[in-house]
Amino acid sequence: MKERITVVKIGGAFLENESELETISRKFASMQGKRILVHGGGKRASQISQALGIEPKLIGGRRITDRKTLEVVTMVYGGWANKNLVGRLQSLGCNAIGLSGADADLIRAVRRPVKEVDYGYVGDVESVNVASLQLLLRAGLTPVFCALTHNGKGQLLNTNADTVAAEIAKALGGEYRTSLYYCFDKKGVLRDLNDPNSVIAHLDQATFRDLEGKGIIAEGMMPKLHNSFGALEGGVEEVCIGPPELMTGNAGIFTKLSL
Amino acid sequence: MKERITVVKIGGAFLENESELETISRKFASMQGKRILVHGGGKRASQISQALGIEPKLIGGRRITDRKTLEVVTMVYGGWANKNLVGRLQSLGCNAIGLSGADADLIRAVRRPVKEVDYGYVGDVESVNVASLQLLLRAGLTPVFCALTHNGKGQLLNTNADTVAAEIAKALGGEYRTSLYYCFDKKGVLRDLNDPNSVIAHLDQATFRDLEGKGIIAEGMMPKLHNSFGALEGGVEEVCIGPPELMTGNAGIFTKLSL
Repeated sequence: MKERITVVKIGGAFLENESELETISRKFASMQGKRILVHGGGKRASQISQALGIEPKLIGGRRITDRKTLEVVTMVYGGWANKNLVGRLQSLGCNAIGLSGADADLIRAVRRPVKEVDYGYVGDVESVNVASLQLLLRAGLTPVFCALTHNGKGQLLNTNADTVAAEIAKALGGEYRTSLYYCFDKKGVLRDLNDPNSVIAHLDQATFRDLEGKGIIAEGMMPKLHNSFGALEGGVEEVCIGPPELMTGNAGIFTKLSL
Repeated sequence: MKERITVVKIGGAFLENESELETISRKFASMQGKRILVHGGGKRASQISQALGIEPKLIGGRRITDRKTLEVVTMVYGGWANKNLVGRLQSLGCNAIGLSGADADLIRAVRRPVKEVDYGYVGDVESVNVASLQLLLRAGLTPVFCALTHNGKGQLLNTNADTVAAEIAKALGGEYRTSLYYCFDKKGVLRDLNDPNSVIAHLDQATFRDLEGKGIIAEGMMPKLHNSFGALEGGVEEVCIGPPELMTGNAGIFTKLSL
């Protein structure tokens, strides 16, 4: 029987202050078995951009990663968020190693083709280097990924952290029984954004399409859900969306997805 | 016979722009055999600090790393400099992996004790985890270290890059024949700062003490030289200070140190 591995994605909001960082790190460090952490960058990237006088560029509500913004996210995701998480996990006995997709050539991406919108230095994942990842996992290390990838030609690329987590989980499906946990600041996918308790406990693809068609699911949840179903289709055994307590097995209510 | 490994430290000045980054990366990538890169952060950390309105704190000419400054160096050294170097090296066929001392618990340090001066979040290296480093080296990876360490209790610490390089070289002495190259923007240790060609080709410890006593060696060279002789005393076979061409074996004139 294949060994289990859990890919946990945490939102950048959990890294905003020392106390949150400690809490989320404790939950992850306490997990048993092989696991991989993927983190977002949160508000800090916007704060730093603002302080540096970089105007946020949005087209159709979507952020554009120009050269200066890429520099900021490289600093904030790859440096500040990643190293603080690793340092904290190390203090909790978890032998973490911080990574971007460029490190050990772990995640290659292609710059998103320009159609209506030029998103700038944004990468769509092309491949996850399972052999390199296995070397680290077999050495007893716990990978901690920031959401930066590279194109193999010296260009770093900003990539959605939810997508990075899903792609890693899918790629490991051949070697492991994989679970994918999206941990965020809600209990799960909500029927009603104004009611934090309106969690959809089980969400299959047909229901999702129905709710999506009726406009019931919040816009902000869409990328996470598309990644989730994509992961299930790609062979990931289990995908859950919910609070950080997913990691410790005492989330109570959360959203479990199925095809 | 033990395998050879070369630890190369490059100054942050070589990371200032794309063209410099490309040139220095090519030299390192072209080196044969096992090697480790250690980089400084250069002016970018000061620029970012200034832009964020963080006042540089200097006591007796030495920079103090307060909490905000630590955050900036974590971003700039661990994120910006490290990931850009790794991405570039990957494009040149060098399987680089970017690391801080917190990653895989590679370098532990203790916060410098407060005597006359409180240097803030500055770490003096306590130990290099050779076993972890060997796992990466044996996997065919080329470690790229930024000059950040940790105390094992969740605290990142700013550590002199010259010292990080020397400590890594010393620690590997048991397993390898080690060389340590300090690459900077001069041809070597100069007798006369105003004459770039006044390179001291061979510098032994007695001569160094003599020149130091006479005030002939520039103040800024002292930490590098103390690290150099410390490395030789600690079993490092070869220590050279010179231009980046040390890496490609065509430096011409440079400074070679001996006890």
